[in-house]
Formats: sequence, structure tokens, C-alpha cells
Amino acid sequence: MNPRTDPAEDVLLQHPWRPVTIDGCQLLVKSWFGETAYRILLTDMQCVWEERMDAVAIESRAQGLNRRLRASVRAFFSHLCEVAQPCLTGGGRTGDEAQISVRRWEDGNITLRLKSELAGLPFYWEFHCSPAPVALVCVQLVRPLLAMSRLLQRQVEHLEDLLVRKDEEIQDYRENGATLSRERLQTDIFDKQPYAEDFIEKTLPLLWSEPSDALGFNADLQQLHATIVAYRSARKRKWPEETGAEQNQLSPEPSAQTLTPDGDDPTRDEGNQNSSKQVEPSRARRPAAHTKQPAPITTCPVERPTSKPKKKKVGLFK
Amino acid sequence: MNPRTDPAEDVLLQHPWRPVTIDGCQLLVKSWFGETAYRILLTDMQCVWEERMDAVAIESRAQGLNRRLRASVRAFFSHLCEVAQPCLTGGGRTGDEAQISVRRWEDGNITLRLKSELAGLPFYWEFHCSPAPVALVCVQLVRPLLAMSRLLQRQVEHLEDLLVRKDEEIQDYRENGATLSRERLQTDIFDKQPYAEDFIEKTLPLLWSEPSDALGFNADLQQLHATIVAYRSARKRKWPEETGAEQNQLSPEPSAQTLTPDGDDPTRDEGNQNSSKQVEPSRARRPAAHTKQPAPITTCPVERPTSKPKKKKVGLFK
Repeated sequence: MNPRTDPAEDVLLQHPWRPVTIDGCQLLVKSWFGETAYRILLTDMQCVWEERMDAVAIESRAQGLNRRLRASVRAFFSHLCEVAQPCLTGGGRTGDEAQISVRRWEDGNITLRLKSELAGLPFYWEFHCSPAPVALVCVQLVRPLLAMSRLLQRQVEHLEDLLVRKDEEIQDYRENGATLSRERLQTDIFDKQPYAEDFIEKTLPLLWSEPSDALGFNADLQQLHATIVAYRSARKRKWPEETGAEQNQLSPEPSAQTLTPDGDDPTRDEGNQNSSKQVEPSRARRPAAHTKQPAPITTCPVERPTSKPKKKKVGLFK
Repeated sequence: MNPRTDPAEDVLLQHPWRPVTIDGCQLLVKSWFGETAYRILLTDMQCVWEERMDAVAIESRAQGLNRRLRASVRAFFSHLCEVAQPCLTGGGRTGDEAQISVRRWEDGNITLRLKSELAGLPFYWEFHCSPAPVALVCVQLVRPLLAMSRLLQRQVEHLEDLLVRKDEEIQDYRENGATLSRERLQTDIFDKQPYAEDFIEKTLPLLWSEPSDALGFNADLQQLHATIVAYRSARKRKWPEETGAEQNQLSPEPSAQTLTPDGDDPTRDEGNQNSSKQVEPSRARRPAAHTKQPAPITTCPVERPTSKPKKKKVGLFK
């Protein structure tokens, strides 16, 4: 899956993760509602689920769930937005009008069920969410979280440098005979290494023992996430040619999907060329996931002789 | 999938993500080699792949790839460990002895191919890695990264507080007439909000323009990751009864897999009880991923009447 091929993808990327409690379940939710289409992405930090629906799919489900209701897909969708969006953005429920519940299925999917009223009749909707593709989880969570850690780590380093400079200033005053009028204002000399060790030792237990809001993704971190994602998206729009440079760094482009599989390992001999066709026990036990019409391994191009196989493959991951 | 049911899971969780360049591809790798079993987990931050192999699967693949080689699975595995581990831990290649290449398939899988020699004959191995289940990505990357961000964010706040105290001390010296012997030692008063905005503005561009090692997961962050994961694992071993408390916070236990699906939305009327059986268009287009023998929706228990549905579901996500 290449998330970048979906125009809704970037829209969703720039949406914040909103902490929402639905039916007693703490979740982080991203949602996007278009004209007669939507996408939602949910996580409880144990799993990430998504659903993408277009007008046809919405109409079909709407009819199945609301047999007595006669409304155009537009009218239906408009009401759905009205009642679902407050639930999915943490904006609170719309009072008694909308009720929402969560059901988790054995196959790993979850369903959010919504009940409201439309034109005096019961109005039902269900969001059927499946585990999201790993690539999407990388785009929406892993890479932004890593960028956040990198940024915060740099900030820690920068603040530590500032503290060292403050100490140099204080030291100079003292050496010139200055004294404090209030003893309690005196600070200890900042020593980076012992400080960091002590800080981590004292803070780690608190991370798990203190109550945390939003599954630990608190408001400051949400803000930082939004800032980082917005910056990166803006930068890509402004300098799309930079993409190549970025690919070597934080978040390489998923360019591989546009490539046919290569391989061409010159170290392989004739006797092993058919090895990729063998039944692979571990794969048989756990089916490969997130594969849309996967190309059977046997349909991959036969290996071509080449003297520089490595150069050919650099583009796959960079 | 419940990663905690697999004893190798915790072992792998406590292994660091090691930056490895294989065949020109930058990857982060976790690997665990047992007696005649292994697990590997790879990411290029676009996707996460894994393979789990036991003795039977290893023997079968070994025979397919090495028809001329006659060796016990133990001897074979021992040699595999010897040649593969340096490649997978960033310990460098074993010279000309082992060659490793990467092939990416259209279905999203990747294969690492290894060639070496055993008893004078060519020795081949292939790691067939499939996209990892999202739950595993949450355990191995998302939750630790979020914990890292939380810890670093607290550290930033703590350092900011220290800077404010340093300024109070400096202010007191100055008010008592102290002067600096060297002008260059004078620092600006630390003002949290403008500082943070300025820092982010200046640092964000650097995050993507400077070369970064290990896909941005640099040595300090790896260290922090290891510290956090080790601490949490130790705490769980020491106070397993705390698990419940933790579930409400950073990383809830994946307890849902042990539960049968519930639901029981009292807001649903008779006419809608069969709605969960309908064909769901978006699901049909993109198959649900990472589902081992998914329970068909139609096999889920029929809805039971209940007056307190919310209480029943709290355990699902907490």
C-alpha cells in the first residue's frame, strides 16, 4: 500500500490524534469526512484500526442498517457527519441524540455502533474498522513519534548547554566575591551525566504509576506531533524535490511499490533458482498481511545476471 | 495476536533496535536466535517485517535451499547463527565468507538472502519476512517511542525549571551589584515560551536536512529505548499485579484476545440485529489484515440484553 497515492492520506496525516473515550474505551482517533466519503483511524496503543468508505459503500451500508429510512446518501451522510464527528473528535456526545458503543471481534476488527434519530426515525451507523496496514502505522505514528523523540532529545541537549552557560556566569559572579541575599536561591552546579541518570531513574517509575491522559499522548505531545507533521507536509509542498534527500533520513518514501521486484543475487547458483517457489512453513502458518492481490512469488521475474546488484537495489529502501 | 503468549516476544522486546546496512538498505533490526529457532524483526520506518522460524521450518527450508548439503539441523543452525548474527546485529560482515542481499516482493514481503560456505560447499539461507502484525508494531515501536517522547518531554520541562532557578540566582547577584569580569559570559534571561517556539522553528528544518544515522533512531535514542523497555519489563516481573494499573495508561494489555466478542448495544432494535452479517464493501475491497483464522462475524454470539453494557466492555481496552 502506498498511502501517498490516496489524497485523503495527507489530509488525515495532518489531522491531530484526538483522545476520545467511547463507550468506556480510551482511544486516539483521526477522522476525515469528505462530501460523501470518510476515513477514520483509531488506536488504543495496542492496535491501530482504520476504515475508508466512499459514497457507494456508505449507501449500501446505510440501506442495510436503516431499512425504514428513506433518505438520499447525501442527506444520510450529512446527518452522519453531524452525529459522528463530535463523538470522534472528543467534542463530546451530542447529548441523548447519539449513542455510540464499541464492539471488538475475534478476528481483530472493531465496530463502532452509532444510534441517533433522523426525521423522527432511528438512525443507525456502524464503523467497521480493520487493523491498519503497517505502512500506514509507520506514516501516522512511528515516524512522527520518532521525529518527536529526536526533536525533544535535541531540546534536552540544548537546554543542558544553556544550563552549563548559566553556571559559568554564576561562577564568574562568585569568583568576583558576589554573594546571595537569599540562601535558598543558590542552585547546584549542573552536571549533565549524573543529572540525566538521576532524572531517568526518578521519572521512569512515574511514567507508569501516574495517571496519564490520552493514553500517554498528552496535549503537549499532540501539539508537537501536529507541528512536526504540518512542517514536514508544508516543506514537501514547497520543495518536492527534497523528497530524495529526506528519503535517506527520517522517513523514506514508500517508493518500492512502484517497482517490480528485483533481486538478482549473483551469488546464487542455478541449483537454487527455484528455491523461492518452495512452500515456506512460517508463512503458511501466518498469512502475509496487508497484501492486495499479492503477486505470487512464482510470477516474479526470473533472475537476471548482473555484475552490480547492489546499485540496482539502493532505490528500494532509500 | 497476543505477543505476550510467545516467550520469545519479551526476549525480542528487550533487544535493542540495531541499525544495520544490508545490501545498501538502511534497516533497524531486532533478532533472537535460540537453540534451533529464531525470530527477526526489521524496519526501514516505512514498514516493519518479521519472521519466526522453528526447528521444523528451518530444516525444511535448509533442505530446499541446500540440496547438496548433508548436515543435521543443529549443525546447519549453528553455522547460520555464526554467519547471520553479525549481519543482523550490525557487527559487520564476516568478510568474504557471508554475502547478504535484500529482495522486496510485490506482495509487501522481503527476503534476505545469505550465502556462505559450510564444509567447503555453498551454504544458502533466506529470511522470508512478512509485514508484522500491527499489535507487534505497537509493542515494539509505537509504545516505546511514545514513552520516550513522554520522558524527554518531562526532561525538557525539568531543565526549563532549572534554568528559571538559575536566572533567579543570577538576578539576585546582579541586584546586589555583582558584575561579570568577562562580558561574554552573560546569558539571556530564559523565557520558556519564546524559547520553545524559537527552538522548534530552528530545529525542525535540521531534522530533515542533516544526515541522520540509523534512520533517525540514533545511539542516544536507542539507549533510551533500551532503558525504558528494560525498566518496564523488570517492573512487570517484580510487580505483576501492577499490570492492571498500567493498562489504563501507556500500554494496556492486549486482553481482548482472550475475550469472546461482546457488544450488546441496548440501543439496537430488532430490525437491526442482522446488520452485522451484511457484506461490508470497504472490507471486501481491502481484506482484514493479520487475522489468524478470523471468526466470521456471523459466528459471534447474538446480542444479549443488558442494562449496563458499558461496564461489561471496560475490560476490552483497558
